[in-house]
Amino acid sequence: MTNTIVTLESRPTGAIQESNFGMKTEEIRELNDGEFLVAIEALSMDPAIRGWMNAGTTYIKGIELGTVMRSFSAGKVIQSKNDAFKVGDYVEGMLGAQSHAISDGSGMRIIDVSKSKLTHHLGVLGMPGMTAYFGLLRRGEPKAGDVIYISAASGVVGSTVGQIAKIKGCTVIGSAGSDAKCKFLIDECGFDYTINYKTENLDAKLKEYAPNGIHIFYDNVGGDTLNTALANLAQGARVVICGAISQYNDMANIQGPANYMKIVTARGYMTGIIVFDFVKEWPAAANEIAGWIADGKINVKEHIVESLENYFSTLQMLYTGENFGKLILTV
Amino acid sequence: MTNTIVTLESRPTGAIQESNFGMKTEEIRELNDGEFLVAIEALSMDPAIRGWMNAGTTYIKGIELGTVMRSFSAGKVIQSKNDAFKVGDYVEGMLGAQSHAISDGSGMRIIDVSKSKLTHHLGVLGMPGMTAYFGLLRRGEPKAGDVIYISAASGVVGSTVGQIAKIKGCTVIGSAGSDAKCKFLIDECGFDYTINYKTENLDAKLKEYAPNGIHIFYDNVGGDTLNTALANLAQGARVVICGAISQYNDMANIQGPANYMKIVTARGYMTGIIVFDFVKEWPAAANEIAGWIADGKINVKEHIVESLENYFSTLQMLYTGENFGKLILTV
Repeated sequence: MTNTIVTLESRPTGAIQESNFGMKTEEIRELNDGEFLVAIEALSMDPAIRGWMNAGTTYIKGIELGTVMRSFSAGKVIQSKNDAFKVGDYVEGMLGAQSHAISDGSGMRIIDVSKSKLTHHLGVLGMPGMTAYFGLLRRGEPKAGDVIYISAASGVVGSTVGQIAKIKGCTVIGSAGSDAKCKFLIDECGFDYTINYKTENLDAKLKEYAPNGIHIFYDNVGGDTLNTALANLAQGARVVICGAISQYNDMANIQGPANYMKIVTARGYMTGIIVFDFVKEWPAAANEIAGWIADGKINVKEHIVESLENYFSTLQMLYTGENFGKLILTV
Repeated sequence: MTNTIVTLESRPTGAIQESNFGMKTEEIRELNDGEFLVAIEALSMDPAIRGWMNAGTTYIKGIELGTVMRSFSAGKVIQSKNDAFKVGDYVEGMLGAQSHAISDGSGMRIIDVSKSKLTHHLGVLGMPGMTAYFGLLRRGEPKAGDVIYISAASGVVGSTVGQIAKIKGCTVIGSAGSDAKCKFLIDECGFDYTINYKTENLDAKLKEYAPNGIHIFYDNVGGDTLNTALANLAQGARVVICGAISQYNDMANIQGPANYMKIVTARGYMTGIIVFDFVKEWPAAANEIAGWIADGKINVKEHIVESLENYFSTLQMLYTGENFGKLILTV
């Protein structure tokens, strides 16, 4: 039996290039005691992957050249020498961008695909959903009546943040890059206001929708978006930095927020969310989100592309804003 | 009797110019009931004044053109129709840059010049000392063993922060712009390490003196200094923005910190200090600092210039780094 592997062949200096990636096929070796073999069914395509392609260590080590692209993936156990992971179990974890993976179980979790689709466990019930949940609830500290602004709101993180904020009684503003995405946020996610950042003036619209300022800014974008949001903070505002998709392709020249002193005058703070810090609490959080999905309070939107051969073009969609919903690559 | 007044005649667009200021003399009017007349003896020259000269409101309203320059000043009550403020009392507050001021007592506090010099109440026992105290203790949350880095450390705020941090058991690193200032910080303020930012490489020295990173960064400077400090944060670091002296002369083009994502990977936060938020607690804090001065734990350094006629050239010293110690203009 063979494994098809997407590899990192070179580190991008700006935008990712097709030449940064390779593909190869290898025979799958015999399992050692304690190991099991997973037939991967789906990969989570996450903006964070761009950061993982750099050399050096930030919150996580950069991927080594020539090795499999790091990826949250989910699939079915098809061979096992590990009592905790039986043939037929579905698992999710950092299994990589490949068709098969051998694991000793570390960092793996068994997922229940009887109640929710496998792909949900890569999105709203997986890392992005956990990022939304802990970023909003533990770092943003929402209170009923707060106004929250979410950038890149139509992604799975942003749309989940907004829907949880609605559950918590906040007024929710989201920005996205198309009228269709904005319509989705209003019609299907229950956002109060949306801003198409490509056709509308972000600053003017924030002043219109949040005349007394933003109490929470949940940022996935950075750059001008962060700067404009800072200019519109309410007193006591919390800025939660989740990502900076606008900056990932030119990490050597990141645009710092010129309006950072607004954090001082607003008596607020800026912090961030590293979802791995809450990994022990993921099962409970995923349970709570699954309950909200069942109650129709959280809408799940997925954008599914097929085949590992489309790895590069699919990943690229994240940085051009082409995808609409949680981006998944099936094997 | 006449009052000599320094006025704001125009708003600087970059560095302050002599032409931004005016000087005039007026007859002092009769007191109304509840008012008293102060003969001002000394003005506090504070970096924040540059911000007050801009139009619009940040944490405080901009000074109106043609009116007296806003200033923390201290002096002696020489006439009074207010029972709470008697002739002979010494007072401190926002009395302006002038030789005399009429006050109804709002925002004024009586100071005890029998135990400490009047000028101390404009520095280490006044707004700058309070900024150091509350910024460090309430925002920086120092713990014994923490490493703190303070920029513009030889100013009254910075040197007081460092000395309080030493009392709290921290390792203290300060940067300043001359070897004499660095020597003062080591010899007289008990700092552990200093960096002459004009002759030494800040990043290299921070890595040398704080090999495991900085737990608290108390920033008075902004710009490259802030950016370099962010790159050297320890896990759980607190960044306290107090000022941004490097940026005040070009507020339209403030340099945002490109390394702001380091706050996320450090699991830290960035916040600020607005000293007016703690005004009710000032007397208790000033008492505690006065005790530390009496115990020889806090060193007081003042740089005194004489005469209101030197207002412009004295204020300018703050932005060129010429002063050494708390800058005071006597009337």
